[in-house]
Amino acid sequence: MALGKDYARQDCSLARALEVVGERWTLLIVRDAFYGVRRFSDFATHLDIPKAVLAARLQSLVEHGLLDKTGNEYVLTATGRELWPAVHALARWGERHFTDGQPRRLFVHALCGTRVDEDGRCTTCDATPAAQDLEIHPGPGMNPNGRTDAVAEVLRTPHRFLDPIAAD
Amino acid sequence: MALGKDYARQDCSLARALEVVGERWTLLIVRDAFYGVRRFSDFATHLDIPKAVLAARLQSLVEHGLLDKTGNEYVLTATGRELWPAVHALARWGERHFTDGQPRRLFVHALCGTRVDEDGRCTTCDATPAAQDLEIHPGPGMNPNGRTDAVAEVLRTPHRFLDPIAAD
Repeated sequence: MALGKDYARQDCSLARALEVVGERWTLLIVRDAFYGVRRFSDFATHLDIPKAVLAARLQSLVEHGLLDKTGNEYVLTATGRELWPAVHALARWGERHFTDGQPRRLFVHALCGTRVDEDGRCTTCDATPAAQDLEIHPGPGMNPNGRTDAVAEVLRTPHRFLDPIAAD
Repeated sequence: MALGKDYARQDCSLARALEVVGERWTLLIVRDAFYGVRRFSDFATHLDIPKAVLAARLQSLVEHGLLDKTGNEYVLTATGRELWPAVHALARWGERHFTDGQPRRLFVHALCGTRVDEDGRCTTCDATPAAQDLEIHPGPGMNPNGRTDAVAEVLRTPHRFLDPIAAD
């Protein structure tokens, strides 16, 4: 099926990756999980995504081993966390070419406070921090009149990656 | 529209990027363009993609400034070439977690012959080569009995990124 879910005749690591994270909304769900969103209702509110679609995507991410479901919370596994370089590279590319170039969010190495560069590297430490060693800070392009959902409010101040967002 | 093409209410660089390259097949077309595929018929043959879908995706990539169409050839622009870090990161992640771990293809810094690492860096030169400075080599996981289309045949020996594949 040309527009089915897989790319069976493409013997290619990229095709395998896209079979897992190439469906619509999936990478935005993963992004929110990096920011610390864990609960179905918080994903739904922050993403404006229909609940049936969200439920299907979360289930797929659990089945493929990117998320663990514990009680009512979805938490990134090591496999899921290793997606950060790809998510970061895509976001930086989108920022350079399809926004006004003012970053909405900044990614900072928690250990030393340095903003990581375009390649995700910390030039102070000469290392590429893993996702769990980053903080998300509001950037100069953040719209002060933007979203007002609970997750967006938490992210108006610095927040450690993966630390749960308690949005109550 | 939840399953429409854009993510209008997500003020996020990742959402902007996915609006441009998040549709099914798009990143595989971009991958082939990095390998030097330029002609409609070569994309169609190597990707097994219906021609109507391919035509729509190529047109969208031209409209968004990722491909230039010159005569009958589609060539990556600077904007398109800057997608390489994201494509590479996604492919390496797919390889680690959703294949047998044996790379189908190796990416080598043409200047020094060093295979780039997981982060796309050349440790010999302590730099991250741009796509145009890479070569694609067959890897140990390449299936010797795999695809036999003309593009696949060219890629059985080392090939400089972006050099046109003349598949006649």
